[in-house]
Amino acid sequence: QGLLGHWQERNATATLPHCVRQLDESGAIDNVRRALGEVSGPHVGMWFSDSDIYKTLEAAAWQLGRDPANVALRAFIDTTSALLARAQEADGYLNSYVQSDAGRTRWDEMKTSHELYCAGHLIQAAVACARAGVGAELFAVAQRLADLAVQRFGAEDGEAVCGHPEIETALVELHRTTGRQDYLDLARRFIDLRGKGLLGEDDRFGRAYFQDHVAVRDATEVTGHAVRQLYLLAGVVDVAVETGDGQLLDTAERLWESAFQTKTYLTGGHGSRHWGEAFGDPYELPPDRAYAETCAAIASFQWNWRLLLATGACRYADEMERALYNAIGVATSTDGTHFFYSNPLQLRTGHDGSHEDAPSQRLSWYTCACCPPNLARLMASLQSYVATADGDGVQLHLYASGNVHTGHGELEMDTHYPWQGQVRVRVRAAGTQSWTLALRVPGWCAQATVAIDGIAVDVAVDDGYLRLTRVWGEDTTIVLDLPMPARLVSAHARVDAVRGCVALMRGPLVYSVEQADLPEGVVLEDVRLDTGVLTATDSGDGRVMLSASGLVPEAPGPTDLYGEYPSPPRSQARIPLTAIPYFYWGNREPGPMRVWIPTAEGEGEQ
Amino acid sequence: QGLLGHWQERNATATLPHCVRQLDESGAIDNVRRALGEVSGPHVGMWFSDSDIYKTLEAAAWQLGRDPANVALRAFIDTTSALLARAQEADGYLNSYVQSDAGRTRWDEMKTSHELYCAGHLIQAAVACARAGVGAELFAVAQRLADLAVQRFGAEDGEAVCGHPEIETALVELHRTTGRQDYLDLARRFIDLRGKGLLGEDDRFGRAYFQDHVAVRDATEVTGHAVRQLYLLAGVVDVAVETGDGQLLDTAERLWESAFQTKTYLTGGHGSRHWGEAFGDPYELPPDRAYAETCAAIASFQWNWRLLLATGACRYADEMERALYNAIGVATSTDGTHFFYSNPLQLRTGHDGSHEDAPSQRLSWYTCACCPPNLARLMASLQSYVATADGDGVQLHLYASGNVHTGHGELEMDTHYPWQGQVRVRVRAAGTQSWTLALRVPGWCAQATVAIDGIAVDVAVDDGYLRLTRVWGEDTTIVLDLPMPARLVSAHARVDAVRGCVALMRGPLVYSVEQADLPEGVVLEDVRLDTGVLTATDSGDGRVMLSASGLVPEAPGPTDLYGEYPSPPRSQARIPLTAIPYFYWGNREPGPMRVWIPTAEGEGEQ
Repeated sequence: QGLLGHWQERNATATLPHCVRQLDESGAIDNVRRALGEVSGPHVGMWFSDSDIYKTLEAAAWQLGRDPANVALRAFIDTTSALLARAQEADGYLNSYVQSDAGRTRWDEMKTSHELYCAGHLIQAAVACARAGVGAELFAVAQRLADLAVQRFGAEDGEAVCGHPEIETALVELHRTTGRQDYLDLARRFIDLRGKGLLGEDDRFGRAYFQDHVAVRDATEVTGHAVRQLYLLAGVVDVAVETGDGQLLDTAERLWESAFQTKTYLTGGHGSRHWGEAFGDPYELPPDRAYAETCAAIASFQWNWRLLLATGACRYADEMERALYNAIGVATSTDGTHFFYSNPLQLRTGHDGSHEDAPSQRLSWYTCACCPPNLARLMASLQSYVATADGDGVQLHLYASGNVHTGHGELEMDTHYPWQGQVRVRVRAAGTQSWTLALRVPGWCAQATVAIDGIAVDVAVDDGYLRLTRVWGEDTTIVLDLPMPARLVSAHARVDAVRGCVALMRGPLVYSVEQADLPEGVVLEDVRLDTGVLTATDSGDGRVMLSASGLVPEAPGPTDLYGEYPSPPRSQARIPLTAIPYFYWGNREPGPMRVWIPTAEGEGEQ
Repeated sequence: QGLLGHWQERNATATLPHCVRQLDESGAIDNVRRALGEVSGPHVGMWFSDSDIYKTLEAAAWQLGRDPANVALRAFIDTTSALLARAQEADGYLNSYVQSDAGRTRWDEMKTSHELYCAGHLIQAAVACARAGVGAELFAVAQRLADLAVQRFGAEDGEAVCGHPEIETALVELHRTTGRQDYLDLARRFIDLRGKGLLGEDDRFGRAYFQDHVAVRDATEVTGHAVRQLYLLAGVVDVAVETGDGQLLDTAERLWESAFQTKTYLTGGHGSRHWGEAFGDPYELPPDRAYAETCAAIASFQWNWRLLLATGACRYADEMERALYNAIGVATSTDGTHFFYSNPLQLRTGHDGSHEDAPSQRLSWYTCACCPPNLARLMASLQSYVATADGDGVQLHLYASGNVHTGHGELEMDTHYPWQGQVRVRVRAAGTQSWTLALRVPGWCAQATVAIDGIAVDVAVDDGYLRLTRVWGEDTTIVLDLPMPARLVSAHARVDAVRGCVALMRGPLVYSVEQADLPEGVVLEDVRLDTGVLTATDSGDGRVMLSASGLVPEAPGPTDLYGEYPSPPRSQARIPLTAIPYFYWGNREPGPMRVWIPTAEGEGEQ
């Protein structure tokens, strides 16, 4: 029930089966058979296609944890694990790209080979299996490969890092699952070996692309390839927490400020440049050229989750929510089988993105297919990010209908969030001890109220949470009310790319205006927003759209690109504007879209 | 005398000798020796490094035409020509990259090999030699290669095009020099064979990158790699003019409107994207991410020159002037030996462009060194773009001090343009026939006046020119006055990236604000312009700077990237602002710069 529940259901019934099929159709599975000599011809697709398999396996494991009776998924895991076990070499090595060609040497091209990146995704799949109580064979395969990595890279003379971070967080998860210290040690070693130039120079993108330009602990700015940077930072927090390394945690928090105070899109997306799929300069956030890769948004979600667990600070939960409902939510089509790789905040009239992974429409698969199975594994495990519990009590971070089981008791959440701001929580306490129920008040919400069993409680928001401490009775109902009027948002004055524009939001949702909702003949680029008119409208099916008023020139303007300032005033006509949630855009005929709308005031027009 | 004269002088004494030296240091000359087996080791640098040699030879030829006594340049041309003649195969083939490795096959990789691109630059160098009356050996080498191209690609079964246009315009120039029809036929064939998919698909950039996505005559939009598109269009006009092909000329004019009404920077630069070095969508003109490659600006200058010759329309001369003083002028350092490859209109605080050919400083050379010798050949031939003559009379397009020799008579121009708008033209007519002196009135000039021998003449501007028709006396002095007050310019309302900003201009010059001129502690990104204050100031050495008034926040603002609209007002302090010509920026310590300045009004601040 509710939007997140719907997304999980769609993932289970559409996205995940689609990914499983695509592993066959794209040749990823055949690549493994190729390593066994059972299929001829050269390795197809990307050289890291194994990671598509591993992420799909991880998604399947999480989903099987939710739906143990799913025979098809169990068969997929078992069959694929058996294949991988056969392909694995005696010493534990496994990588179909290297193994399928005798001319390739293992660990020989650390900058580009993605061998440890793929290993990391295998390990994450294995950890998911362990947590879901399935796939013992896969776990064994992963552990053999992890042991080989420890042997090869944990040794004194084994100094190396992978050009694409991912193994770091995976090894810490494996440490958590197995208790093995050597996995944690290797993760820490991989982090501390960065910035020493072990990957060599790179003429094309520079060392920042591979996260090898600076020692992690000395970094002051998120930079380079966004997914690499964010996966690395997830691992940094993992290592910091497990080793009690305060300096490393400080590094992560410092870099979080670089990311979220200067380089994050309103949608939670990261990566301002197509060139190098990279972070831009501070405040360089063009909506049209936003790369905002789906995988970067997922990585950001995972990084923020780790920082939330490490610190309990609400700003991390706020960013999880922002990314989830916008930069991540937008990546999947309503039918669950088409995906955006890049998630711009504007698509211009006449745009042709067919050759830059920034299409005007979602595609069913990509040559570099990192994003779809990444979405599948996140969606299948979404319930684990909703709440946390510790000795003090239970913290609710994301709001969705469902049950939360904790040592303190059972919680039953019921809400139409994010369409409506009311969250009803029924608590059935397990004991007679006092504990604290912490309810997150999102940063966008100014006037949260809470009532217990119908009686308003006057409690201040404490670092983003309303904290209710008491001995909970047998059956208590808390109603949290998060008013979510439609609102106008502006960007920091240094964000040049959206000067004179506002964005429309409601609750955690960013809205967008799509050509399909404009009157015939109106060009989206000409629309100006009357900021005085904005209302939320229930579309009848529970979804909420926004209604506003726009102005467009009554006659075609001059064709000159540049002219005298100020421009002569132009007579304007008024049109109705409809804004739909950003995550819904692109599900009708392809056409222009924009999140940031120029205001009529901004240009001194009218 | 004057700025253009100074640029030509700097080119002769600094840039051109620097390019000649770099041909040795970069290994380009050695690559040719490598083709002869006289130097060992693999080909170095770009596979089209021959074109660096050819462009430098072209520059040397033009310069030798201006300065026939230059022994060093003559020796450079002779020595290099002899080397090339030796390296040329018996059938005329010449390409050091292909010849230096027996594993490479000629004409085998038309999409990427640049063989005909290099041949085109060789031919252009040869044509320059012919026009300057030097380098007969080089001309013979070029013609042998051109004849081979005719034989190979002019044949019925020789359908192919080069992945990088350039040969088209070169072949027409060779046709003009030799009168040979087969060169013109081949140029036309190369144009008409585009859009047929002869270059195959391209996963990375798409067929538009190679200008093979559409038949040239069907194209409606400039797109793909900017330099490729613009070189092709120069050839299109050449072929249209020489074959009297009105449809092809219409195509060029239609694409000119696409380029100059939707995809041109205020500086005349082209290319909005680093990815694919490409044109963006219409109105996608980010100042910070402007690629605006130097070679694209030179190509645009050459394309506009051809359209000007073909049509006589002033808009083409206006764009030549815009590009020359801004997008082209900015590429060279004041010392003449350092160059920008990419020419953005904004550099942010904290920018690191070291790995994207968009450095914060000009570099002395590039691995892909297309731009520096391209600048050298343009600067050495600049005088040929100043004026034209036909049966009706003489047309002055660009203003600079110097003499113009025509069949109608001698013209002596004297001016401090572009610093001052007065142009004094002394005419010494050659005959007693009436003819028309046409003086271009730049599009930016609203109030041009003209006087003949001290008496004001009341004549209307006719398509951008003041046309004075008379029987010219022995010695007549015309004074054209082009008032050039400092002015504020705004962009078309669809140019999202500079909304709420203005640019400062005076005459043809775009100005910029550089960090080096700001008071200590002021961050350029925080500066807002008071549009009410703007004056021009002579810097004492003839150069004109602009003075304005800015506003900056008195206290640091919020760190949040996004907040409520409207933002709370902030108290502002007033600072003096100095703007320097854009082409001068980056000659002091590296630091932030911007052309488009946000107005104080634009944000409702103050």
